[in-house]
Amino acid sequence: MTNNDFPELLGIMREARKATDGLAAFDGRARDGFLEALARLLGEESDSVLSANEKDVQRAKADGAKPARLDRLLLDRARLAQVIHGVEACRCLDDPLGRVEDLSTMPDGLVVGRQRVPLGLIGFICEARPGAVVEAAALAVKSGNGLMAKPGRESGRTSGVLGDILAAALARAGLPRAAVRVLPDLDAEQLRFMISQGGLLDLVIPRGGADLISFVDENSRVPVLRHFQGVNHLYVDERADVGMAVSLAVNGKCDRPSTCNALECLLVHRARLDDFLPQVCDALARRDVTIYACPEARARVSGLEEALEHHYGREFMDLALALRVVPDMDVAMAHIRLHGSRHTESICTSDLATARRFLSLVDAGCVLANASTRLNDGGCLGLGAEIGISTSKVHAYGPMGLRELTTTKFVVLGHGHLRS
Amino acid sequence: MTNNDFPELLGIMREARKATDGLAAFDGRARDGFLEALARLLGEESDSVLSANEKDVQRAKADGAKPARLDRLLLDRARLAQVIHGVEACRCLDDPLGRVEDLSTMPDGLVVGRQRVPLGLIGFICEARPGAVVEAAALAVKSGNGLMAKPGRESGRTSGVLGDILAAALARAGLPRAAVRVLPDLDAEQLRFMISQGGLLDLVIPRGGADLISFVDENSRVPVLRHFQGVNHLYVDERADVGMAVSLAVNGKCDRPSTCNALECLLVHRARLDDFLPQVCDALARRDVTIYACPEARARVSGLEEALEHHYGREFMDLALALRVVPDMDVAMAHIRLHGSRHTESICTSDLATARRFLSLVDAGCVLANASTRLNDGGCLGLGAEIGISTSKVHAYGPMGLRELTTTKFVVLGHGHLRS
Repeated sequence: MTNNDFPELLGIMREARKATDGLAAFDGRARDGFLEALARLLGEESDSVLSANEKDVQRAKADGAKPARLDRLLLDRARLAQVIHGVEACRCLDDPLGRVEDLSTMPDGLVVGRQRVPLGLIGFICEARPGAVVEAAALAVKSGNGLMAKPGRESGRTSGVLGDILAAALARAGLPRAAVRVLPDLDAEQLRFMISQGGLLDLVIPRGGADLISFVDENSRVPVLRHFQGVNHLYVDERADVGMAVSLAVNGKCDRPSTCNALECLLVHRARLDDFLPQVCDALARRDVTIYACPEARARVSGLEEALEHHYGREFMDLALALRVVPDMDVAMAHIRLHGSRHTESICTSDLATARRFLSLVDAGCVLANASTRLNDGGCLGLGAEIGISTSKVHAYGPMGLRELTTTKFVVLGHGHLRS
Repeated sequence: MTNNDFPELLGIMREARKATDGLAAFDGRARDGFLEALARLLGEESDSVLSANEKDVQRAKADGAKPARLDRLLLDRARLAQVIHGVEACRCLDDPLGRVEDLSTMPDGLVVGRQRVPLGLIGFICEARPGAVVEAAALAVKSGNGLMAKPGRESGRTSGVLGDILAAALARAGLPRAAVRVLPDLDAEQLRFMISQGGLLDLVIPRGGADLISFVDENSRVPVLRHFQGVNHLYVDERADVGMAVSLAVNGKCDRPSTCNALECLLVHRARLDDFLPQVCDALARRDVTIYACPEARARVSGLEEALEHHYGREFMDLALALRVVPDMDVAMAHIRLHGSRHTESICTSDLATARRFLSLVDAGCVLANASTRLNDGGCLGLGAEIGISTSKVHAYGPMGLRELTTTKFVVLGHGHLRS
């Protein structure tokens, strides 16, 4: 692959790079001006957004898309209002740039600090809901970064309208329009070219399933922060509050099954087979959840499907759930180590020492005690908004907000200091 | 390439992975016990280390290695004492693990914090001085990580002895010996195999020249933190103190030319052609430094070589330096943007506003004012020690110490919190 293969895309990337470098000249007020204009324009243009989305949804339906996929694609008035709210929440956050942190004076008088700076031009490739591109752009520009976004093709019309709104908002705020580009129509070869441009892109964030992640892993010549699937567990301890455990399971699975922080597998302590198990199965059945359970659970509760090996470690993206009975927390943690995707892991227990041990030992971007897996979300955890949830440990682990879109450089002030 | 190609290496990696996971069970005191044993053993075994190094140096001499390369390879008694001092300094640092940071309670009562955890198993590939492996192991284990180190082949005997000492120190501290491996004899195919094992390695840190970095970039299936070459500049402003500027230039270039933070290019404001330029050229000539200068400088001072295009953006690794006269700081910063490697950039000025502007706008892992480029070093900047200096922005930018070998996971404590 040479630079002559995709001259048009290369031109767009070079423009985006230049515009990104140009963002350094604008202060926080100008960047917030973009967010203000964006929120206003999304409101003003909501009819065009919704009608473009309707066409996308109809097209996907005609193509035979499954309910979970359709639900992810859908952008209705309530969800658009949430997106606008997210943009406004992001505007209200402190400017992440410029601040010098960890300032200290060395014994020889050298003053050392770390100044927060943007990462640069970010490639954002997502199969997620269409609003994700708007939130990604809001976070990127607020933190001084440029964005090349490639949403899924199925959201092409919606993304086209949102891309126009983003460009208009940049222009209104006096920022370079080329700093954010939305390119739903890139094909695989163009995408491969884009993520191989190490001199132009500083980071790639893929947000999607196994195929997308491995495509990016194999082809990127740029650092990658994976937003991989969430194979998320809830371990119900022997000392769990049964009512709380049932509501955590139902909320985790049913609140929005198509999202990455939905619950996929229940691990139940053997001591709770008589009370929790029948109650949770009953509550889930009333929500039409199919349960794939181990033999021990099936012997206690009727109507459960048989769990095959492939049901563990699976992201159902649907009203389906795996269930396994475990003799103790160590077996539960071993199951999570083997089958989890380091995304969201949760325990329900009323014993604080047990909760602390689980929180400390389980390896995932977000580990919760007595809280729904659905709360692993930048907004719920105080980040304002998120561009994704990292399932790899380098740079960021868990939800990525403004701070995760920046880095620090060392700034040093001396008065003739030498090394000897 | 399949997993059957290098069964022995794969076995070593699996053992290292298992030992790394096992490190989680040891507290900070046990990890510090390793550093204590390491410092003691390095002292006790210093004669074996030095005599192995003598053989490596003789062999490299016979193979026609250049002085800078020989200097980098050399581990004499004074340098070994520095390495031991570095290990002891690292032991005295606070335990980076376990601490929960940024603890806050959300409006709904959800308690959210970030717990510092190790990255995992780190691949460290270096062409640097042999002591670097010891410092890398000290930092890795102190921060709960395992290490697979591949030093340069030319340091094979020294690295072999150091690897034995590391294993003995782990054993003395009761830690799993397999958590640190030193493998100087891996060939390119084995190295390619090692850095493609995404399921076993969590991070690769290559520390070396352009060939090594691009080899790793092309073959790694694991996140990479590049420690690339340092093409470092000193810009001497029109309001610089001449004596200070001369000493910064001489220290930057001559203190240890084979290191990555040595000075490679002087940018001189046109207003200082009459005083600074002749003085610095004289001082550098007395240290046998060859200067490749632009026509404007050569017209003022005799004895300067002609700067060709390839002299700019070059890491000489030797007593050689490029020099260019610039009309103002903006041209200097544009030169740095074009030719620098984002490693270490420095200004000499007595005007605070100018210094602040340079520190804020120049994009490099470490930007200094009135201080030698040689001070871009984990020890000098308060990190205790360093495993490398990152020239890419993701995860770390600049010197990488203990904190850069860790990440944070979100830990969340609720009392039945749901998403609605």
